Amino acid sequence: MSEKQKCAISPQRAEDFPEWYQQIIRAADLAENSEVRGCMVIKPWGYALWERMQAELDRMFKETGHRNAYFPLFIPLSYLEKEAAHVEGFAKECAVVTHHRLEAKDGKLVPSGELTEPLVVRPTSETIIGAAYARWVKSWRDLPILLNQWANVVRWEMRPRLFLRTAEFLWQEGHTAHETREEAEIETMKMLRVYETFARDFLALPVLTGEKSESERFPGALRTYCIEAMVQDRKAIQAGTSHFLGQNFSKAAGIQFQGRDGSLQHAWTTSWGVSTRLIGTLIMAHSDDDGLMMPPRIAHTHVVILPITPKEDSKAAVLEAAESLAQAIRATTFHGSAVSVEVDTRDLGGGVKSWEYIKKGVPIRLEIGPRDLAQGTAALSRRDHPHKDKEFLPVADIPSRIAGILDEIQSALLARATSFRDTHLRRLDTKEEFYAFFTPANAEKPEAHGGFALTHWNGSAAVEEQVKNDLKVTIRCIPFEGSAEPGVCPFSGEPSQQRVVWAKSY
Amino acid sequence: MSEKQKCAISPQRAEDFPEWYQQIIRAADLAENSEVRGCMVIKPWGYALWERMQAELDRMFKETGHRNAYFPLFIPLSYLEKEAAHVEGFAKECAVVTHHRLEAKDGKLVPSGELTEPLVVRPTSETIIGAAYARWVKSWRDLPILLNQWANVVRWEMRPRLFLRTAEFLWQEGHTAHETREEAEIETMKMLRVYETFARDFLALPVLTGEKSESERFPGALRTYCIEAMVQDRKAIQAGTSHFLGQNFSKAAGIQFQGRDGSLQHAWTTSWGVSTRLIGTLIMAHSDDDGLMMPPRIAHTHVVILPITPKEDSKAAVLEAAESLAQAIRATTFHGSAVSVEVDTRDLGGGVKSWEYIKKGVPIRLEIGPRDLAQGTAALSRRDHPHKDKEFLPVADIPSRIAGILDEIQSALLARATSFRDTHLRRLDTKEEFYAFFTPANAEKPEAHGGFALTHWNGSAAVEEQVKNDLKVTIRCIPFEGSAEPGVCPFSGEPSQQRVVWAKSY
Repeated sequence: MSEKQKCAISPQRAEDFPEWYQQIIRAADLAENSEVRGCMVIKPWGYALWERMQAELDRMFKETGHRNAYFPLFIPLSYLEKEAAHVEGFAKECAVVTHHRLEAKDGKLVPSGELTEPLVVRPTSETIIGAAYARWVKSWRDLPILLNQWANVVRWEMRPRLFLRTAEFLWQEGHTAHETREEAEIETMKMLRVYETFARDFLALPVLTGEKSESERFPGALRTYCIEAMVQDRKAIQAGTSHFLGQNFSKAAGIQFQGRDGSLQHAWTTSWGVSTRLIGTLIMAHSDDDGLMMPPRIAHTHVVILPITPKEDSKAAVLEAAESLAQAIRATTFHGSAVSVEVDTRDLGGGVKSWEYIKKGVPIRLEIGPRDLAQGTAALSRRDHPHKDKEFLPVADIPSRIAGILDEIQSALLARATSFRDTHLRRLDTKEEFYAFFTPANAEKPEAHGGFALTHWNGSAAVEEQVKNDLKVTIRCIPFEGSAEPGVCPFSGEPSQQRVVWAKSY
Repeated sequence: MSEKQKCAISPQRAEDFPEWYQQIIRAADLAENSEVRGCMVIKPWGYALWERMQAELDRMFKETGHRNAYFPLFIPLSYLEKEAAHVEGFAKECAVVTHHRLEAKDGKLVPSGELTEPLVVRPTSETIIGAAYARWVKSWRDLPILLNQWANVVRWEMRPRLFLRTAEFLWQEGHTAHETREEAEIETMKMLRVYETFARDFLALPVLTGEKSESERFPGALRTYCIEAMVQDRKAIQAGTSHFLGQNFSKAAGIQFQGRDGSLQHAWTTSWGVSTRLIGTLIMAHSDDDGLMMPPRIAHTHVVILPITPKEDSKAAVLEAAESLAQAIRATTFHGSAVSVEVDTRDLGGGVKSWEYIKKGVPIRLEIGPRDLAQGTAALSRRDHPHKDKEFLPVADIPSRIAGILDEIQSALLARATSFRDTHLRRLDTKEEFYAFFTPANAEKPEAHGGFALTHWNGSAAVEEQVKNDLKVTIRCIPFEGSAEPGVCPFSGEPSQQRVVWAKSY
């Protein structure tokens, strides 16, 4: 075998990153394209990741005072039209329901029962939720309203990509209404910090946080804040956003209340969301040329036990030892929940099975065979170490060590991603450096290059437009931390108050 | 106050059951109609009930070997057409997407970008999931596939009713594929029993289980089994169904595999689902003229503590005692989870607050005021007892008693519903008795009447049709238990093998 063939995934990251991404998803059995354009099927191994994300985020939302509710899938066209920037932003990618039944005609079924007003399948729910809040809010005593919705949304995509950009995707959208501007601003920032914490502590993603420039703002928002992750081709992925909507949507929907001083006022609203895009971000950030790598705190399966049963006479004893080890590990906890263990008893070769879980990203593999049985040991392999590394441990010691090893893996993934990000985040001061940074060395094979450039900007949309046209590079965020310093915008020569983060992005 | 005014809900059940139902939903703040025809907004208090149902059902599905996945919202029209009975059953109530963007025209937005093939918003997912299974299944080794999906579905409704019949609703749909007919039949029955157990043990609903007659079968199924609940106007609600689909959908979708004998075979499939309709069933089964009554095992809030603070000088001490009691109760468990406690510290009168939680159906209310503080007591009220009944208990004793009282309430609700069902389930042998049973005594005010009739049937669809036309009564199920005995069908005079359950239904 050549060096190259030792990897489970082909092509490798350095060869063809987009195709490597598709192959990781296939090898880990996470999702696939359906025959419905842009709509994906999320398979059990991928959906279980989403369930873990939902569980942790839902807990964090409830701890910050939010409750869940559910609003209609369909939005009357007239609702969308109420906020000018909003409809402008979404009109070009809306699935539109125009009929409410099917009818046979010339032996074929055709749409029938035309609706008097077309309905849009929600691309996001500010307008339909705003209409409900307008019904509910009468007095300042009815505020704040702090709700979240777990739902599917649809944005027609011309160039879909599994998890990262799909016509239908799953997400949560928080929608809050407040008495004062200040309260709404605090809420916007609080939820951004929830996302930042979740990304760092669970997904092992050292995201940057900051504000979007006007051109990247959510349609209808006054301010959009985001968490931006760097993935292994050094591009950025916007992994979550929190919007301060001001009074735009409350004016459009009529969310009015009698204030403490008796005057009629419009509520201040926010919205914030993360989606199944987080799964794509996770994959691109942590996987390697052998497959997926699940950070332990978001993994639905922490440990897989692989009984090696070459001989019939020792098979029962090995299986029994594997099951008893599984039970002992399940009795231990990792961050407050039972460690999740699978035992794969299928009659397949040990190598085949082991590779399957490497590709599926299970943090810890334990092999136990007849020889281990005699010696009272099992072979432990960590997904973040080379696949050949095995540590033979006394079976009796293993359960008590699992949580610690999972924590080590979690920390190792975060440290690796942080180091990668820091290596590819550069303070660039001249236009030449900047353009060189984002121009592939070999134009025919644009392998991973560039990264995040921390570069001054004069605040002009024209500059953004020019850079985008030249390099497909945009401002990912105006970061909160460490970038406020006077300088010169290298594109315009004009003064700049702070550096911003520029990158290519998904 | 007159006797009548002592109830919180107007009208009362006996006066106008449908309107009472609407008022219960409003008083408990569970849901409301949106401006989108037939689509509801599920408010936090109602959605939390759905979250509890989801949590328990999801656990039961996983314990029976199922995993979750997610399939596209949109179904190509051609998929639906593949199974003749299926499309026949759903064509008249499909929301159809025909365009993928909006365009300005004469100052208005109109649908644009017409799709070459219209997409149907899923009314159920047999066809789109079948297409995926056809891709996944090659060999008998790929079977069984045991998946479930939590999703929204749309069936256009001309006469919507909150929770019971809405254009969009939330549900779970299990879809399984098997190697043999027998395995699929076992699965169908297993999941029916999961629903029956869930309904009885969590919702306190003593449902009847059985098979549907052909006319009430799921479009495309070989057999449909159901759980049927009786609610307080003595009508039936189909609360869950499990379908044995035979090979109909696998032939339509091409789910084929190489069998153990090498031959190419079609898989045997099942599907099964329950929906937010369960919330409507719960409301109609257990609520009274004072509001909702949540069975403790499905309640999201078990206990509410109402501090009574008439005087400023004792307020702090009362609030502190309330909070400390809440913490002590939260440290106890009810069926394996912490008891859920709310403390309502709002500055409202005790009566106003108490009535709010009566209407919202919280199982246990605890009032604590300055006098209680002095005596070391609190006043406990149970939602299933008259609202004036209060038991003064030593505060120190309360935490250890809560779980027991919750169990008592749960049992009381099940016993009450069982007794109600048994009282209104009659073995009727003549057509005259049967017609009298289902004919209101006062035709102008059709208050609750009738119930479930256990009556012989010759198996003829014509008889079903006649009874339906005459009385709006249908066969709710051919029950599994206690009804197989030879007899005479009173409608046709023909022999019958067993009694079936007839009722009016939602």
